[in-house]
Amino acid sequence: MKSYRKELWFEVRKRRAVINITPQVEECLAESRIQEGIILVNTMHITASVFINDDESGLHYDYEQWLEKIAPHEPVSQYRHNVGEDNADAHMKRQVMGREALVAVTEGKLDFGTWEQIFYGEFDGRRRKRVLVKIIGE
Amino acid sequence: MKSYRKELWFEVRKRRAVINITPQVEECLAESRIQEGIILVNTMHITASVFINDDESGLHYDYEQWLEKIAPHEPVSQYRHNVGEDNADAHMKRQVMGREALVAVTEGKLDFGTWEQIFYGEFDGRRRKRVLVKIIGE
Amino acid sequence: MKSYRKELWFEVRKRRAVINITPQVEECLAESRIQEGIILVNTMHITASVFINDDESGLHYDYEQWLEKIAPHEPVSQYRHNVGEDNADAHMKRQVMGREALVAVTEGKLDFGTWEQIFYGEFDGRRRKRVLVKIIGE
Repeated sequence: MKSYRKELWFEVRKRRAVINITPQVEECLAESRIQEGIILVNTMHITASVFINDDESGLHYDYEQWLEKIAPHEPVSQYRHNVGEDNADAHMKRQVMGREALVAVTEGKLDFGTWEQIFYGEFDGRRRKRVLVKIIGE
Repeated sequence: MKSYRKELWFEVRKRRAVINITPQVEECLAESRIQEGIILVNTMHITASVFINDDESGLHYDYEQWLEKIAPHEPVSQYRHNVGEDNADAHMKRQVMGREALVAVTEGKLDFGTWEQIFYGEFDGRRRKRVLVKIIGE
Repeated sequence: MKSYRKELWFEVRKRRAVINITPQVEECLAESRIQEGIILVNTMHITASVFINDDESGLHYDYEQWLEKIAPHEPVSQYRHNVGEDNADAHMKRQVMGREALVAVTEGKLDFGTWEQIFYGEFDGRRRKRVLVKIIGE
């Protein structure tokens, strides 16, 4: 069994953003030379997400509006976590969207359906944050 | 390390449905002859879900009602994604229910609790769609 | 490839609770002597969750309030699943929070960001329940 590990770093200037990280993950996979196995991509932070969906800007806007309705940022005083912080809503948004993506590796490629892409979802940005890529296989 | 891959195909005639796919996944596992490892089952589409829960029709009806309340289909004009499409809500429902199930394989079996079953959740049906089964282990 | 399996048992006296199980998972990893691979931690029940987030009691209180708003327990008669049962809401809360955590193993340690911790989320307690730890790697 072979294994591969790499950290990807992101800094989002706004509080929230959705970034397509599929090209970086594909580079990791090529570098690993693993042909058959699985690839785990997870945020190392608890107010961010890694998820798989469509690379369509209208949908990303809809996600933003929808998550804000389900877990509103304001008023920040509604959350007990917000003592000296204001990011409780980000911890909730991340649970809805998920922490990690797990993708099959087949013949050295991400084994994806037609529209599947991997995204980093930031819900409490304006500082450097990491995504972990771990691949195991042969 | 051994690996196994198979696609399962589904066509749901309605927009939404929940289908128990545990028997098909068990067939894949038997065919793979893998005794110890993990099995990844994921939808290859972005408006569908693979999830683990209870095979109880009342609960499936409750999920349908609940997801419709959290991410309503109508009015379709409320979503920017719905330009020539009407399935933005399906992209949200799938995030709540999840894209994939990951199950331990122990002594050649799905290592499940008493009531755990694997489901394909369709939120935008009426066309052929795929589920990927990938098993790695020994 | 090596594999390791262990069940962790919990009994929560209340209906709902959040328990940090990171120390037990770390013990499993040490016992397995696996250095590189992945670790799957999943609840074996369908009204509970294993998830990764922050070990902060204010946030856990906020999660409880938030999940109760998204998927209310009362009135129990609003759910078809509640025929002789009253836990339909627990099946929904668990979908939001997730069934499993998947963590990279690097140099014999959980490959975690600064604040990541693993939790067992109970939504229908007052009986003994299990969490499965499965590790594969080398």
